[in-house]
Amino acid sequence: MNERPRGIESVLVVGTGLIGTSVALALREHGVTVKLTDQSPGAVRVACELGAGDEWEPGGDRVDLAVIAVPPQFVADWLLDLQKTEAARFYTDVASVKALPIEQARRLGCDLSAYVAGHPLAGRERSGPGAARADVFLGRPWAYCPGRETSPRAVAAVLSLIELCGGNAVKVDPVAHDEAVALISHAPHVAASAVAARLVGASDTALGLAGPGVRDVTRVAGGDPDLWTVILSGNARPVAEVLEAVATDLAAAAAALRAVSVDDDGAIARVTELLRRGNAGRSRIPGKHGGPARAYAVVQVLVGDRPGELARLFQVAQDAGVNIEDVRLEHAPGLPLGAAELSVQPESAEVLAEALRSHGWHVP
Amino acid sequence: MNERPRGIESVLVVGTGLIGTSVALALREHGVTVKLTDQSPGAVRVACELGAGDEWEPGGDRVDLAVIAVPPQFVADWLLDLQKTEAARFYTDVASVKALPIEQARRLGCDLSAYVAGHPLAGRERSGPGAARADVFLGRPWAYCPGRETSPRAVAAVLSLIELCGGNAVKVDPVAHDEAVALISHAPHVAASAVAARLVGASDTALGLAGPGVRDVTRVAGGDPDLWTVILSGNARPVAEVLEAVATDLAAAAAALRAVSVDDDGAIARVTELLRRGNAGRSRIPGKHGGPARAYAVVQVLVGDRPGELARLFQVAQDAGVNIEDVRLEHAPGLPLGAAELSVQPESAEVLAEALRSHGWHVP
Repeated sequence: MNERPRGIESVLVVGTGLIGTSVALALREHGVTVKLTDQSPGAVRVACELGAGDEWEPGGDRVDLAVIAVPPQFVADWLLDLQKTEAARFYTDVASVKALPIEQARRLGCDLSAYVAGHPLAGRERSGPGAARADVFLGRPWAYCPGRETSPRAVAAVLSLIELCGGNAVKVDPVAHDEAVALISHAPHVAASAVAARLVGASDTALGLAGPGVRDVTRVAGGDPDLWTVILSGNARPVAEVLEAVATDLAAAAAALRAVSVDDDGAIARVTELLRRGNAGRSRIPGKHGGPARAYAVVQVLVGDRPGELARLFQVAQDAGVNIEDVRLEHAPGLPLGAAELSVQPESAEVLAEALRSHGWHVP
Repeated sequence: MNERPRGIESVLVVGTGLIGTSVALALREHGVTVKLTDQSPGAVRVACELGAGDEWEPGGDRVDLAVIAVPPQFVADWLLDLQKTEAARFYTDVASVKALPIEQARRLGCDLSAYVAGHPLAGRERSGPGAARADVFLGRPWAYCPGRETSPRAVAAVLSLIELCGGNAVKVDPVAHDEAVALISHAPHVAASAVAARLVGASDTALGLAGPGVRDVTRVAGGDPDLWTVILSGNARPVAEVLEAVATDLAAAAAALRAVSVDDDGAIARVTELLRRGNAGRSRIPGKHGGPARAYAVVQVLVGDRPGELARLFQVAQDAGVNIEDVRLEHAPGLPLGAAELSVQPESAEVLAEALRSHGWHVP
């Protein structure tokens, strides 16, 4: 309960999975009244027990904002139903694709002036309300897609939500959003799955030689196939386009390597060219691994895996006048201590380090 | 200088790149006499300044073991030259493919009784002697490939080398080795490059939405294209086979997603099936991310980035009678502190934690 909420004082969260429950927990920390509903009574119960809010009673008081946290295909149906009963003044969603729910909402005749599509980029490897945390949005991008019909007050409500959750609001066109996430999330997920699928038939000896490289490449392939099927089918065409290009590059590399193995020495140049393009693409990712256009300094701090610790850390940064541009957590599963890497403008690094130290954090 | 070397007291390292210099540094810590040579006089100088040994004078005393740390295509030529002058009693190499150098050595008429092909699985993102560290082999697999002609004394010399470097010796057939590294290292590298290559044309908005997932998938794509061209061309056929299968899976997934986007609802099942295979393959990687057959406990310890610290830690584990099965380091670039995750048998976890604490390490 760090501060009074601004703009939104009551929120309905529809769908108490990982993201919905995390939004609810973040809002509760700011004293927002949160109502919860889910098609699974068990999931609502878990979320309530976690302190995410109280079960929603349809027909009760109208809330300021409804956050529809269901798979993309069902967002518009929920929006229509909620608007029919005037359940909320404004509406948003957190689905990972944006063109589909907006198009369906338009087709169903929803009131688009009160709806702003949104997408917090805050996935975790786990799913369900039990994996929810109030701090998963801190310092992470949160895309939002206002349309021509959207009212400024609806946009303000969603910006308040993003601020209360600690996200970085990024305004983006819905089609551009979907192409972007195809490129930086959905297609890489399928590619990782295809690499990991090759290990099904691998010998134990081969697997015993596995190092950090293949672990990194395939980490996201551990995600829930049913959840990802829904995500991918909601963004089918943009993902297909990226995957076709990746498959073409890999088939060409394979053909070049076949030619190398029969002594066509020129063929290897085509492999080198792909590796060079990989270097170039890799270096464009902002943050510590590249992106000269955004040369952030990284402040490393040891954090415990206690609820709210990361939120307190962001509060200290805010009080010190430092904006945290990105955060990366290294947590060993099941262990209470981890390292947080906070990306900040270079001139702010020492200010942040001092502020954290003076509040008892260990900054090496 | 933790102990007296066993079996090998003098070593010649040919090629003072990352791996060759790291081997030399590890051997120096055990008091082994190390001679260094490289086609680049500058690289030898850097390695000597790092304390990796002294420059080799051809025609001097015969050493116990020569470690040929050059690209796979040049291993056999070096082996032949060294054997002509009887530079060493035994010979090994550290190249990332094994069938090619063995076949070339046979074709050139090298003495195969004195040569054991080897491959430490210890890549880093950086290259060159300046990135070398004595501890990069600790707890990592080190493949070795004795043939029918190999003398037991040559095998013993290479096993001594692996032990002095702290690696886990894994005996493997050369062809099986090459197929294994194609699967768990070389093909994943190319796949990561192909995913990263898509980012070359991405908008800044898209890149601003990038999260930890795409960073993990593409991390290895930051590797040196020239170095990787040499590695891939030395293992061309096995890598091509894996890449063809990955490309086929990705093209099929793309086709299924195209069908989904024109309302063929059944098509998505083919995507789900690939995601499920990805899950299954991912879970076969031993270590903390899966591999129920090897359910290790993980002991996390904070380590400084000082030379020899990890080696001292392994020494404490050894003195406590605990075998470290795997190690994973999380180091922020340029920062002095990191977390080491040590995989051990579950019954040894508390013993190790206590031993480390009693030697002043911070074990959460």
